[in-house]
Amino acid sequence: MNAPFVKDLPMTQPSDKALVPFVSVDNMMRLVHHVGIEQMLRDLSDYIETDFKRWELFDKTPRVASHSDVGVIELMPTSDGEAYGFKYVNGHPKNTAEGLQTVTAFGLLADVYTGYPVLLTEMTILTALRTAATSAMVAKHLAPKGADTMAMIGNGAQSEFQSLAMKAICGVTTIRLYDQDPNATAKCARNLAGTGLTVIPCKTPEEAIQGAQILTTCTADKQYATILTDNMVGSGVHINAIGGDCPGKTELAPGILNRSDVFVEYPPQTRIEGEIQQMPKDFAVTEMWQVITGQTPGRTDDRQITLFDSVGFAIEDFSALRYIRDQIRGTDYFFELDMLADPDDPRDLFGMVQRAAPA
Amino acid sequence: MNAPFVKDLPMTQPSDKALVPFVSVDNMMRLVHHVGIEQMLRDLSDYIETDFKRWELFDKTPRVASHSDVGVIELMPTSDGEAYGFKYVNGHPKNTAEGLQTVTAFGLLADVYTGYPVLLTEMTILTALRTAATSAMVAKHLAPKGADTMAMIGNGAQSEFQSLAMKAICGVTTIRLYDQDPNATAKCARNLAGTGLTVIPCKTPEEAIQGAQILTTCTADKQYATILTDNMVGSGVHINAIGGDCPGKTELAPGILNRSDVFVEYPPQTRIEGEIQQMPKDFAVTEMWQVITGQTPGRTDDRQITLFDSVGFAIEDFSALRYIRDQIRGTDYFFELDMLADPDDPRDLFGMVQRAAPA
Repeated sequence: MNAPFVKDLPMTQPSDKALVPFVSVDNMMRLVHHVGIEQMLRDLSDYIETDFKRWELFDKTPRVASHSDVGVIELMPTSDGEAYGFKYVNGHPKNTAEGLQTVTAFGLLADVYTGYPVLLTEMTILTALRTAATSAMVAKHLAPKGADTMAMIGNGAQSEFQSLAMKAICGVTTIRLYDQDPNATAKCARNLAGTGLTVIPCKTPEEAIQGAQILTTCTADKQYATILTDNMVGSGVHINAIGGDCPGKTELAPGILNRSDVFVEYPPQTRIEGEIQQMPKDFAVTEMWQVITGQTPGRTDDRQITLFDSVGFAIEDFSALRYIRDQIRGTDYFFELDMLADPDDPRDLFGMVQRAAPA
Repeated sequence: MNAPFVKDLPMTQPSDKALVPFVSVDNMMRLVHHVGIEQMLRDLSDYIETDFKRWELFDKTPRVASHSDVGVIELMPTSDGEAYGFKYVNGHPKNTAEGLQTVTAFGLLADVYTGYPVLLTEMTILTALRTAATSAMVAKHLAPKGADTMAMIGNGAQSEFQSLAMKAICGVTTIRLYDQDPNATAKCARNLAGTGLTVIPCKTPEEAIQGAQILTTCTADKQYATILTDNMVGSGVHINAIGGDCPGKTELAPGILNRSDVFVEYPPQTRIEGEIQQMPKDFAVTEMWQVITGQTPGRTDDRQITLFDSVGFAIEDFSALRYIRDQIRGTDYFFELDMLADPDDPRDLFGMVQRAAPA
């Protein structure tokens, strides 16, 4: 078995066009530390907001999902006519118990004009970052003025990213944590120590919600769960509903949806995957891009309950991929993969293979 | 800029589960020479035929296409419930004139049970191989008995692979070549010298067709072309129509379709992309998998014209990916990419990132 990253010299030398920059998990972590995580969250939020402003320009489709009993594997493509991007992502809630990630991902950016890939990257870490950046960008538009406290229900892999994004982008100062597993809460609290946030572990979801203007639900269970009951949701809050993100997976009691103004990414996908899958097909929602461009109001009243029914949309991944492509320029936070066969005469693919025969 | 394949030691050591085997272009060529190209074509044809026999079991969808004025980028996913595979592929006919490949590709296989990728590989060379293997597998079932001569119209990147597959799988002995560019014909003839095939360069498509029982069209132009006119197609031939493979891209005059029995891969995709896009939506076709399982007859008459309206379907890529995964076991024809973030505690993705901070 080869050691990673060290390889005998190849038999053939690939040309420039054959090479695709690859950002490994290790490189992504180096990049995060180089930029700083809160700065990166702010940067991603800017890139995502920029692309939400150009929403109509994008080639949009619900993600292409392959479901099994234990999870889902999805491809999430989109294009702005100049670049094409997609993410591969899985969602397997049962994975945690087997020592694996519930969600892993990788992504690719390509040049529309040539069809050639220009970036391949890990996207497990990057997805956690872009999901948190999107949540915070939306909360910036929808949360009540002066919101400074967030309830974080579900303290798994996404929770610290969500917390730091809310701090960096919305000025949140206090996080109230709850998870059905106290070890998860302890992990999250430990990780957030020293970040400047006040972190309050709570013993029940009701306790976590006390005094919070932003309620984030981020649990992982492929079922119609009720993480928040109708009772628990007071007027004026902003709900950031992250965990429900595929058919058969929801977190909120339907009564909450009836009392809220619901904001979504791409309705055709959210109607299949989001909290609103519990509602009739014509249940009224507002598209977040229209709030961001100013075409449609967001929060209009202090007492209004706003709900971001987040499922994750391809444009957010596209923004993240653009950001990574821009950030790695002139750095060594990537290495190049010999991934695209590129014969000198493009019609002579066979000849290239023939000439590679061992002497 | 890093030299390909040589890298400083990473800051962090990825665990096993983080690593995804990657077959580079260089590795794929080494594998082709190790197995032998004709053997590899026969092996691929067997894997593809095996999966066509299990057709009903697969999760099938038309490929997800993103079109631009100059080409298309597609994702082609499928799953047999145990493994999930997809290919990324572009088609940009104008690329040749710019020194780039019309078609480049890469592919991925993943474990359905965990959602984790288990193989990433170049698929430009592999696509040429699997397309040729599929064409020959189909011709084995449909071409007239004793077929020994193929007309190869379009002598670009696919042509030598098609020719060798027909030799290896169908016993074809003679290839008659035509291309609108005599340099392409010369290239193909040169490459096929010494393979045991009799190769006859021709000055017109009519000359190429003389005495051929199998007619392969493999041209690249995003338009409704007429590579074969109705006049050119005599009774009893098998037409292997490779080149037309997306909306607005066809090679055969409609009259030919009316006189032929048309065999397809996955009708919903072929009706959008194949020669049959020129016909009414209810134009009768036969699904090739049903011929292979013996449910439906293929060629029933010497005078019948059979037409394989090939567009390329995800199951063929899946078969090819399975084959590569099986072939690389125990070899060094791959190296491992640190692509999947894999913290020791799956809920502690953030902690893993934190611990990677430089000292």
